[in-house]
Amino acid sequence: MTDLDLMLRFMLQVLAVLGACKVIGYLGVRFLGQAQVTMEMVAGVMLGPSLFGLLAPEVQNSLFPLKNELGTGKHPSMMILYIIAQIGLVLYMFLVGAEFDLNLIKGKSKAALSISGAGILFPFVFGVIAYYTLMSGQKGLFGENVSDTSRALYLGAAMCITAFPMLARIIYEAGFTGTRLGTLALGSGATDDAAAWSILAVVLAQSKGDPKIAIFAIGGGILFVTLMLTLGKASLAKFLKGKTLDQTLFTFIILLVFAGAWFTDAIGVYAVFGAFTLGAAMPKGELTKALQAKIEPLTVGLFLPFFFVYSGLNTKLSSIQGSEMWVIALIVLIAAIAGKLGGCYLAARLSGEKHTNALGIGILMNSRGLMELIILNVGLKSGVITTQLFSIMVVMAIVTTLMAAPLFKLIKPKLILE
Amino acid sequence: MTDLDLMLRFMLQVLAVLGACKVIGYLGVRFLGQAQVTMEMVAGVMLGPSLFGLLAPEVQNSLFPLKNELGTGKHPSMMILYIIAQIGLVLYMFLVGAEFDLNLIKGKSKAALSISGAGILFPFVFGVIAYYTLMSGQKGLFGENVSDTSRALYLGAAMCITAFPMLARIIYEAGFTGTRLGTLALGSGATDDAAAWSILAVVLAQSKGDPKIAIFAIGGGILFVTLMLTLGKASLAKFLKGKTLDQTLFTFIILLVFAGAWFTDAIGVYAVFGAFTLGAAMPKGELTKALQAKIEPLTVGLFLPFFFVYSGLNTKLSSIQGSEMWVIALIVLIAAIAGKLGGCYLAARLSGEKHTNALGIGILMNSRGLMELIILNVGLKSGVITTQLFSIMVVMAIVTTLMAAPLFKLIKPKLILE
Repeated sequence: MTDLDLMLRFMLQVLAVLGACKVIGYLGVRFLGQAQVTMEMVAGVMLGPSLFGLLAPEVQNSLFPLKNELGTGKHPSMMILYIIAQIGLVLYMFLVGAEFDLNLIKGKSKAALSISGAGILFPFVFGVIAYYTLMSGQKGLFGENVSDTSRALYLGAAMCITAFPMLARIIYEAGFTGTRLGTLALGSGATDDAAAWSILAVVLAQSKGDPKIAIFAIGGGILFVTLMLTLGKASLAKFLKGKTLDQTLFTFIILLVFAGAWFTDAIGVYAVFGAFTLGAAMPKGELTKALQAKIEPLTVGLFLPFFFVYSGLNTKLSSIQGSEMWVIALIVLIAAIAGKLGGCYLAARLSGEKHTNALGIGILMNSRGLMELIILNVGLKSGVITTQLFSIMVVMAIVTTLMAAPLFKLIKPKLILE
Repeated sequence: MTDLDLMLRFMLQVLAVLGACKVIGYLGVRFLGQAQVTMEMVAGVMLGPSLFGLLAPEVQNSLFPLKNELGTGKHPSMMILYIIAQIGLVLYMFLVGAEFDLNLIKGKSKAALSISGAGILFPFVFGVIAYYTLMSGQKGLFGENVSDTSRALYLGAAMCITAFPMLARIIYEAGFTGTRLGTLALGSGATDDAAAWSILAVVLAQSKGDPKIAIFAIGGGILFVTLMLTLGKASLAKFLKGKTLDQTLFTFIILLVFAGAWFTDAIGVYAVFGAFTLGAAMPKGELTKALQAKIEPLTVGLFLPFFFVYSGLNTKLSSIQGSEMWVIALIVLIAAIAGKLGGCYLAARLSGEKHTNALGIGILMNSRGLMELIILNVGLKSGVITTQLFSIMVVMAIVTTLMAAPLFKLIKPKLILE
């Protein structure tokens, strides 16, 4: 494996990933009413073992090798794709954060809190119920040494996930980024994900018998967000006032973004939150707009597709076996939709949102996207769940994600934007 | 080595690389009259085993580990840095190519050809002479099984290198990118590098006894450049006429760039040429300007510094041993400068350039930069040269590179731009 081989393969991967995302994206947007971003996730699954790997296993394996030559671990090429995907995600979440304006939901914070509260509570409770009624007697779904409490907590957390980056992208593609509806959904989605990651930290802490994991993640996360959105925001506004965006300032801001991403990754709440929070702390104005215009093209056009493709490459749909398991998959799917879409709709209605707007928020919050795949990968790697439950949950993630854009498009003309 | 560890380390590397490049760049530009880009190369050497590794070996090794945990090969982190560096370089050379306008040297093509001819001939002959007079009797400089002809050819080729990306960056920083002088230097530099890589292909073909290596590299390279600058250029102009740069077109052009880079890398003349040629084939106009504005910020502000740092990480200055070797290093240095700076100056004067302009071209052509490090790494890896000669040549590369910007700045006010 020389550097030249790695680079040659990487350039072919760029061609395959961008080509597939564009072609499948075009077909999905044109004929299925899907969002470009959802089709990029589907393109990832198609480039992986579930389709391309079935049709031409040798070609697929030489283009996207999963195992190294000795078969002892990951292929370096996969590690490279992972980092490229993460660069795209970090920069993209900074862009999303920079669009995020808390002022737009001032006086609506009660609504955002109750929507995100419901978006956590209902799916979590449904997940716990699903565990105790359906799964606690089943073998082959969870790791042998994992306690009932950990299992139930993990399933609850996995049901809570909202595809925060995907939600952001759908809102962006619909042109709703700066609106109150978009901001409400983004704020609720971000809170939900933060909560789900906190629950995950508790599950991992419990299963590894190390409470520090949970303390760092939750305490550090709250501290970081609070500091960044008060002191950090004020300092940035003061420092950047009257400055123009030259190359040095640009690099400095990129440095800050990666420092924030590093911090949240290090404490265990995932790099996307650091990048998003930093974006949210940026002063709204000309300089931030110029910054977005400089970061966006390569981020969205070259790097972000790798994030959507990367997890698809790791997904195998063929591991759900037996009709009983497919029944469980169906019930999990229904519980997930009822909990998230239903719960958020109810909360939005009770907060005074109109029927269609409440439905729009519920539909967006219901999409699990690749954040779900991430939490599932963590569960699989740490031995909490098996490949079978992993695949059941992947089906749930894909279905809820594919639902989002067409349903949202359907009600979009009736949404009330003010 | 989990994905999270890789990502955490990568984010720290971003902080270290961008931080060091900015601080050392600021000091070098402010107090030493250096170009930002040269200082980024120096920052790379300082972040590597030559300085940071001497001061804090454990910290350096945990931040930039060279060997994997078993010590059997490269650390995955180095492979990631390599690909990040290459992405930066490919996109950057596309930008340089897009600025490259053959029309500016129309009627001056004889001058460009004689300058690049001299820039190849003199250093090459000096290199061959240096080999037969100084080195053919010495042990410990070349691989045991390499013939005299191969050794002399390799040394000649290594003397011919011009730091094409570095030259491009110095011209860019001086604001000379669109001028006739800048274009003349760029054209000569590109031709020189292409020739040096062709000679390298011959050396490798000879040392491996496989003439296909040379045929693919030289024949394929000439075919590619010719086709791209005639048919490719015309097709691009026709296809892009009247189009606006939306996200789909942007991605399509990025695809083309990586396809071109892949092709030239695959035939053995290095990815930079494909990317540069594709840039040169782009129609000059609003669309290309918009494209450059979208690609440049992240390329120059985030990815390119990794190219300059990557090779520095692989450089060890402590391996030149004994005063005799330092004498050889000094003579190689003098021969390199006399051949390149002197030869190009002479050729430019004979083509009718004024004294200062000829000197400016000589100074720019004389900078070896990291292209030299690349050809040296190829020589080292293929067993043509030893670590000792590698380090001697690295000293030559660094000195000729450090000379370029201050000397160029000195004569810059007297340059005649028309």
